[in-house]
Amino acid sequence: MAKAIQLAKKGRYTTHPNPRVGCVLVKDQQIIGQGFHVKAGEGHAEVNALADANQDAVGATAYVTLEPCSHQGKTPPCADALIKAGVARVVYGMQDPNPEVSGNGLAKIKQAGIEIIGPVLEAECEALNLGFIKRMREGLPYVRVKLAMSMDGRTAMESGESQWITDSAARLDVQRLRAQSDAIVTGIGSVLADNPSMTVRIDNDDQEVDPKSVRQPIRVIMDTALSILPEAKILYPTNQAWMFSVEEEVEAEHLETLTKKGVTVRFSPRGLDGRLDLLDAMEQLADSGINEVLLEAGAELAGGFLAAGLIDEIVVYMAPKLLGSSARPLFKLPLDEMDEAVELTLKSVRQVGQDVRLVYQPRYLEDDFEDDLEGDFDEEL
Amino acid sequence: MAKAIQLAKKGRYTTHPNPRVGCVLVKDQQIIGQGFHVKAGEGHAEVNALADANQDAVGATAYVTLEPCSHQGKTPPCADALIKAGVARVVYGMQDPNPEVSGNGLAKIKQAGIEIIGPVLEAECEALNLGFIKRMREGLPYVRVKLAMSMDGRTAMESGESQWITDSAARLDVQRLRAQSDAIVTGIGSVLADNPSMTVRIDNDDQEVDPKSVRQPIRVIMDTALSILPEAKILYPTNQAWMFSVEEEVEAEHLETLTKKGVTVRFSPRGLDGRLDLLDAMEQLADSGINEVLLEAGAELAGGFLAAGLIDEIVVYMAPKLLGSSARPLFKLPLDEMDEAVELTLKSVRQVGQDVRLVYQPRYLEDDFEDDLEGDFDEEL
Repeated sequence: MAKAIQLAKKGRYTTHPNPRVGCVLVKDQQIIGQGFHVKAGEGHAEVNALADANQDAVGATAYVTLEPCSHQGKTPPCADALIKAGVARVVYGMQDPNPEVSGNGLAKIKQAGIEIIGPVLEAECEALNLGFIKRMREGLPYVRVKLAMSMDGRTAMESGESQWITDSAARLDVQRLRAQSDAIVTGIGSVLADNPSMTVRIDNDDQEVDPKSVRQPIRVIMDTALSILPEAKILYPTNQAWMFSVEEEVEAEHLETLTKKGVTVRFSPRGLDGRLDLLDAMEQLADSGINEVLLEAGAELAGGFLAAGLIDEIVVYMAPKLLGSSARPLFKLPLDEMDEAVELTLKSVRQVGQDVRLVYQPRYLEDDFEDDLEGDFDEEL
Repeated sequence: MAKAIQLAKKGRYTTHPNPRVGCVLVKDQQIIGQGFHVKAGEGHAEVNALADANQDAVGATAYVTLEPCSHQGKTPPCADALIKAGVARVVYGMQDPNPEVSGNGLAKIKQAGIEIIGPVLEAECEALNLGFIKRMREGLPYVRVKLAMSMDGRTAMESGESQWITDSAARLDVQRLRAQSDAIVTGIGSVLADNPSMTVRIDNDDQEVDPKSVRQPIRVIMDTALSILPEAKILYPTNQAWMFSVEEEVEAEHLETLTKKGVTVRFSPRGLDGRLDLLDAMEQLADSGINEVLLEAGAELAGGFLAAGLIDEIVVYMAPKLLGSSARPLFKLPLDEMDEAVELTLKSVRQVGQDVRLVYQPRYLEDDFEDDLEGDFDEEL
């Protein structure tokens, strides 16, 4: 299974909106075939492994990181392919995360008299597809917020003056985060201030990502009043640019100008705080097949996502400098009391060039879980 | 020499105001004796190693982390002891950092016909005694500021409400930092807000520090107007409590109350910013034999030390939580432009419990060095 997970990782930058899946076929303690899913519309991992096999797979064991599919999509069901090939045993990493079809593939294989073992290395297999799983289970994308800050937690001077705070190694790392995302989300404030293009730029000699395989994520701008200028760099190419606005605030002529250019404009209602409802916008992205979102935004929008409980992961690059106490904060998040503090769980820490890269998970995700548990206990009492 | 460095480290919590020194005697490729300096007034490392030797040291090689002393102090000069013992060779880690006596011990040994090799592993030997070296070379203590902050660079809520931000592992680590310091420096603001005692509390089962060997560092309070209450916890025991004030601001009666209790009150002039001159206060501490200072202060005083260029090392414990954008900053340090940012060099990063411990060195220390270099070049032109 570890080998199958390794294979699945090869699809990190290419499978979207599909999950990353790897498959290894073993017969007489020899690997006879291996495969992974490369790209939507092309063969799934199981089919690729069968095609790769150097002999027939009758009696073989198939190790696959995700439950084989049972339904006809762009390609035929993998469960059928494994049955037809005559494998004796299927070891799977995790069940299909879509609650409506979960278990169907395994059931089909079992009915054919094939032995089923699993889940095996489930946590590792889930880690391959955090976005796909979240979309299937909750109808929301997995949102990773990327922050670059000074050691004293600041992103720019009070005046807005900023420049690259972090060094080139951290910036390269960000390009990889972008490359594995389906969408980059930012706010109109950042667009007006910096006019960024927010495309993925991978060097030809990159050790991790093949620049030829990079698919540019769509660029999504939260812009309540649709006040973006038609010439903003981030809109080009326009067929990959999405705007989210509040319909009543949008000027019809401006809307027409943008849509004529090919920009997608979506509407969301106002949330409780009177601003664009970020939860609704994220649901729309998930409905469009967006698994992983990279949020690259200023304190205002990042604070809004955090307050809405929409952030799954915080990736911070901390630069070795102090910007001082009047500089701009990381999140606009005015809290008054200590017990309102947002608790985090540290997932990893490592040095990247001169910067420190830290990954955190907000604990409100765990709290929801605990609340559910408490709810259950209450019912029992 | 590596063995001698290990030995020297055993004195980390006990040698002040003396340096930590280790010595190993080797004869016929066997270690015949070893020693380290334990405590001021007791034997130096070389003398302890000679006393430990299981045979005479005639013809032996002495490895010692610091140049042997040549002057009569509380104990006789070590150079004489090595000469008298008949060692054939002295390998030393670094010269005496006091510019006025540096090289004298080595010269004395050389005159006696003994071979001298060194400096060997100089950086590692210097790292043993950052405080002693700084005091000898610059007449200032080595100042380490300890900060506990949230991931967004905050220390407490705007109201001042605070509590332990970091977890128990980080707090234990702070106790060890205190134990290796000669003085803990804080400000009257922290004393009035929290009434801390700032003593070293080491558990009996501590893996690193022997609680029986702990010497309590003196506690130093920066208090311009001498407004501390006589019952403040930090003043007890009073023979280890020092106040720094500006003489004109001090009320005579209050001064008398405190000094009668045994508290030491020192005066410093006003600095350029109208406040107590921190440079002067640090010079006074160095004159009194203080090698290492641990600064545990709020944003105001920590910012003052930073602005005065007095901080040698920043130790930050970063807790996994967000306190929000209205919470209190790390350093009161109002900067307006990006090029005023204080550049740091990352020295180490590791996880301590749920927190991340980072050590930085401000680059103004390096800048001074560069300025000196530039000065030299200017003169040549």
